[in-house]
Amino acid sequence: KLTTAATRQSLKIGLIPADGIGKEVIPAARAAIVALGNDIPKPEFIDLNAGWETFTRTGVALPEETVRVLREECDCALFGSVSSPSRKVTGYSSPIVALRKELDLYANIRPVTSVAPEAGQQPAVDLIVVRENTECLYVKQEQQTIGENGKEARATRLITERASRRIGQMAFELAAARPRKHLTVIHKSNVLSITDGLFRETVRAVPRLPEVNGKYDDVTIMEQLVDSAVYRLFREPEVFDVMVAPNLYGDIISDAAAALVGSLGLIPSVNAGDNFVMGEPVHGSAPDIEGKGIANPIASIRSAALMLRHLGYTKGADRLDLAVDQVIREGKYLTPDLKGKSTTREVLDAVLAKI
Amino acid sequence: KLTTAATRQSLKIGLIPADGIGKEVIPAARAAIVALGNDIPKPEFIDLNAGWETFTRTGVALPEETVRVLREECDCALFGSVSSPSRKVTGYSSPIVALRKELDLYANIRPVTSVAPEAGQQPAVDLIVVRENTECLYVKQEQQTIGENGKEARATRLITERASRRIGQMAFELAAARPRKHLTVIHKSNVLSITDGLFRETVRAVPRLPEVNGKYDDVTIMEQLVDSAVYRLFREPEVFDVMVAPNLYGDIISDAAAALVGSLGLIPSVNAGDNFVMGEPVHGSAPDIEGKGIANPIASIRSAALMLRHLGYTKGADRLDLAVDQVIREGKYLTPDLKGKSTTREVLDAVLAKI
Ligand SMILES: CC(C)[C@H](C(=O)O)[C@@H](O)C(=O)O
Ligand SMILES: CC(C)[C@H](C(=O)O)[C@@H](O)C(=O)O
Repeated sequence: KLTTAATRQSLKIGLIPADGIGKEVIPAARAAIVALGNDIPKPEFIDLNAGWETFTRTGVALPEETVRVLREECDCALFGSVSSPSRKVTGYSSPIVALRKELDLYANIRPVTSVAPEAGQQPAVDLIVVRENTECLYVKQEQQTIGENGKEARATRLITERASRRIGQMAFELAAARPRKHLTVIHKSNVLSITDGLFRETVRAVPRLPEVNGKYDDVTIMEQLVDSAVYRLFREPEVFDVMVAPNLYGDIISDAAAALVGSLGLIPSVNAGDNFVMGEPVHGSAPDIEGKGIANPIASIRSAALMLRHLGYTKGADRLDLAVDQVIREGKYLTPDLKGKSTTREVLDAVLAKI
Repeated sequence: KLTTAATRQSLKIGLIPADGIGKEVIPAARAAIVALGNDIPKPEFIDLNAGWETFTRTGVALPEETVRVLREECDCALFGSVSSPSRKVTGYSSPIVALRKELDLYANIRPVTSVAPEAGQQPAVDLIVVRENTECLYVKQEQQTIGENGKEARATRLITERASRRIGQMAFELAAARPRKHLTVIHKSNVLSITDGLFRETVRAVPRLPEVNGKYDDVTIMEQLVDSAVYRLFREPEVFDVMVAPNLYGDIISDAAAALVGSLGLIPSVNAGDNFVMGEPVHGSAPDIEGKGIANPIASIRSAALMLRHLGYTKGADRLDLAVDQVIREGKYLTPDLKGKSTTREVLDAVLAKI
């Protein structure tokens, strides 16, 4: 189904708002994409279901039909956010984790950049978290047994050479394209010498792969244990450029980095594989503000931009990013997470006016 | 071997400086303890080996003799910090992780408090991380196999009802004794529904245990996913009072909290079990400043205070804490991690002068 950027007549985009504020920010991203006009092939949107609400209605969190349509009919997708049940519910399992695996979207790419360091935001943050997206504890192999002293639960943490190598390649590729060309490998191999040892060694070996052919020779490499990475992110975030991490550490450090630039409501991501890309704001479903019309649409609009960039539509992506950056810098239309008073709609309108 | 505070004639303290700056800060803590004079039973110190250097010399990171002496002869201990090899080394395994398990020191208690919020340190942080110390991924059950696509490594994450219950009890006990009486349970049960589900449910059930008898009824409980806990720690640390977490999350959030109060060099901990307590600064071996004589001794002195408090020597503990707080507030003698110019020795002397 996938064609290349140049030959596409239309762009079929699956929209999966899912739960909570996902239903408020994904429509905003849609509107921003529409506003790009001829800079991208004519967008066609396909609405798709998934999430906790879908589960309570149908008993399935990720309908097969959603996966089928994404696979067979869509060029790309935008995912909103999912709510989780507050108690363990039999049969429910996170649809976003499942989608990442089903579509083999092995890289979760999360750029975190402070927009206005000149406005006193010290120090400037400009980094990308490259998070492995298919394994680690997210393989969800868990069992509970009864031992001598009560219940015992075990989960498997899986780290493979193959997944570590491809996420490593993605990270080196991104690092090599940036001015600082610096890569930090995040792990905890002082405790997990075999699993994180494999991750670390496989990533470090990427520059020596035959097909790489010296491409990454000018990328400098540093390592950082996950606990001290979080500490350093807070204390001297400027040391980081590209950070590559196994799944769970990547989840945590991207939230840490997000806290440095003012709001999770600003941070976009793409879930990228060799054949598909899905944009997704890093924030959650935010039940506390759901339905109030004040969710920050910027993370979703930026996720749309990242998605378009990944597909080769640089011009469209640049226009979205530029518009968003201007709105943030001007500071007139900001949602409450950025200490503003605007609604989702007002911020969207401000962005649309700049596009 | 253990006697109670009231009946002890002397206090036998095992000292395990281990590697790096551990060898500089543990002697400082020792000197501070000696300065307490009659506020505690006469201290007797027993020097013990462990660590990477011990391993390179003897082939064993945690000598049996060290464990035996701690078990049979000591009332308590102070541990410094360990260096890890920069590559996987067969036979080497972290001695601190092993010690926590060998002595069943199931709770790692890490208070993080800003000393001088009036001096512009906004917002004030005043929390305790209560970290489970014996299981989770730290059981170190790892294997590597060869699959279709190369190497595959698996680690087991173990969460038991028993360990979750006793760490939960410790956390409720600490929370109930604090003015705010607030407990946050950290987990990631939206992904790890069985292991973290067991942790969460077991901790939440502690107030209903028969022996608890209403003791914790006025403790309020909140839950927070580990990724958003790190985010919130940076954004609004004042919401947290006591945080209880499985081992790895506890490792990470205590570093995050430490970053908020200026330096890891300030953060103490105790590894506590039902029969033994071991103080340990939260910082690592800091190879970059090793041997320069500028390591911050405060985390170790505070760890000594925590250890003494745990044994029932409140007066001695208070004197150490008060002396340290005064030195930090005055700001005259501070090590470089706190943007000062003083040496370990100068800070220690300043503390000794206040005791
Ligand atoms: C909702 C949850 C399963 C998810 C994750 O842990 O991957 C989220 O935190 C994220 O970062 O996308
Ligand atoms: C040195 C390492 C094994 C240890 C841990 O992860 O527990 C350290 O980070 C700590 O926090 O005490």
